[in-house]
Amino acid sequence: MKALATSPAARGLEDDAAVLPLGSETLVLTHDTMVEGVHTLDGQDPADVAWKLVAVNLSDLAAKGAEPLGLLVSHMLGDDDHRFIEGLRAVCTEYCVPLLGGDTVRSEGTRAWGCTAIGRATHVPVPSRSGARAGDAVYLSGLIGQALLGFEALRDGTGGDESAYCRPRPQLELGHALAPSVTAMMDVSDGLLIDASRIARASGVTLHLDSDAIASMAPEGRLEEAMRWGDDYVLLASGPEGLEAYHPVTRIGTVLARGDEPLLLDGSPPEGKLGYTH
Amino acid sequence: MKALATSPAARGLEDDAAVLPLGSETLVLTHDTMVEGVHTLDGQDPADVAWKLVAVNLSDLAAKGAEPLGLLVSHMLGDDDHRFIEGLRAVCTEYCVPLLGGDTVRSEGTRAWGCTAIGRATHVPVPSRSGARAGDAVYLSGLIGQALLGFEALRDGTGGDESAYCRPRPQLELGHALAPSVTAMMDVSDGLLIDASRIARASGVTLHLDSDAIASMAPEGRLEEAMRWGDDYVLLASGPEGLEAYHPVTRIGTVLARGDEPLLLDGSPPEGKLGYTH
Repeated sequence: MKALATSPAARGLEDDAAVLPLGSETLVLTHDTMVEGVHTLDGQDPADVAWKLVAVNLSDLAAKGAEPLGLLVSHMLGDDDHRFIEGLRAVCTEYCVPLLGGDTVRSEGTRAWGCTAIGRATHVPVPSRSGARAGDAVYLSGLIGQALLGFEALRDGTGGDESAYCRPRPQLELGHALAPSVTAMMDVSDGLLIDASRIARASGVTLHLDSDAIASMAPEGRLEEAMRWGDDYVLLASGPEGLEAYHPVTRIGTVLARGDEPLLLDGSPPEGKLGYTH
Repeated sequence: MKALATSPAARGLEDDAAVLPLGSETLVLTHDTMVEGVHTLDGQDPADVAWKLVAVNLSDLAAKGAEPLGLLVSHMLGDDDHRFIEGLRAVCTEYCVPLLGGDTVRSEGTRAWGCTAIGRATHVPVPSRSGARAGDAVYLSGLIGQALLGFEALRDGTGGDESAYCRPRPQLELGHALAPSVTAMMDVSDGLLIDASRIARASGVTLHLDSDAIASMAPEGRLEEAMRWGDDYVLLASGPEGLEAYHPVTRIGTVLARGDEPLLLDGSPPEGKLGYTH
């Protein structure tokens, strides 16, 4: 969609959310679509699909430090609409965000669901991917690899905890708290390594990550996968040293001047695929 | 989605657009989804699909007298994405509205496209469906049945004018101009009769329409179909007598106190299906 940006108001189009000044406020707008079988597992509870659809959009707002004002949801009707509505109700209640409207359609084929989240910035300038500067520290705001474990539990029916995959929890309060202090921020939706490389590229810097520090945030023995799997919706940020004294974040690296590679893990470019690409 | 309205901010949820006060401004938000084969004809040019996707959302803003601020578009990738992008570019340029962002996804099945349009109200209170009062006149702002003719031309390959079906033109300027004067307003998307009955129900009144007046706005010999076909995206409004002296609208009826029927055509309830229902 980038090629179509027709306005300077579309600052941050490279980001997961659009930023739009309006009167005395700054709007933050995001839209994500989920496709049956692509972003969901066969037979997954539609209540969980609805929760996740909303949660991933709220997570985009969290990464902007934005406060959600409302949602528009597009729903393709099926046999299990009451479960979808149930999940919508649960996530809207949990995050105190009103469903303002949307659309329902019928389709014979694969179903898809869309959500637009509308938020207001709590801090201007709104954090983007492009503000990381050499000398900043790199922070991660929670565990990775939990969605991977949840996905496996659901897929294999092991009875393990599926919640991180099925009902991710956007870090709205933490994003709000971090926004004034960070230089760049995004949520880890496609994998820590690929998302870190996106901050590096957008900021014109190199991110140097420390696998020992990351290992403390990942399931034992699954570090390599956990760094590439995504769907965890924790926050990845750059900012001044010492933020861990004030916020529940862990330092996982340092921002360097741009070298040959945008991303280094213990001094070398990470091997293989970095994460999920659309 | 109605059952889920969780906030009084969702005023006008029965409407095609949500109204959300924010600081000194009032946002108007709308989302519509189009499904391949449901809202499009097989083999239709994706550039026209993109145009229509945006235009129907802008038409919802027009009915609120809102000025468009930007769009978020969700696109399912296919073999013909360049044509879709071409149509997006054309409609964004035509209506000077920036594409702020959105999402692209892949799906093996039937494709669907979503658009969220964000606007700012130019007049508060924002016109809704529920303000029609006994004694008001009923107005129509343009021709009906043109999309019907365009659809037939495209389907049958007659070489006739397809533009009203393929590239509808939202009446943004007229909606803006009418907003301070009307008591209720909506766009004719599902058919004049069904849309008129929606204003009547939302307002708790009866709309009495005059088929002779409507006939002057419809293709000769196709009046009954034209009143039920929709897709024309002209504006239907109620308001004080005499608006036709100041605006390009035609009086087509009168608002009565609520009688036994919400809608009368020449004194009797219209026969058969009133229009397209989702």
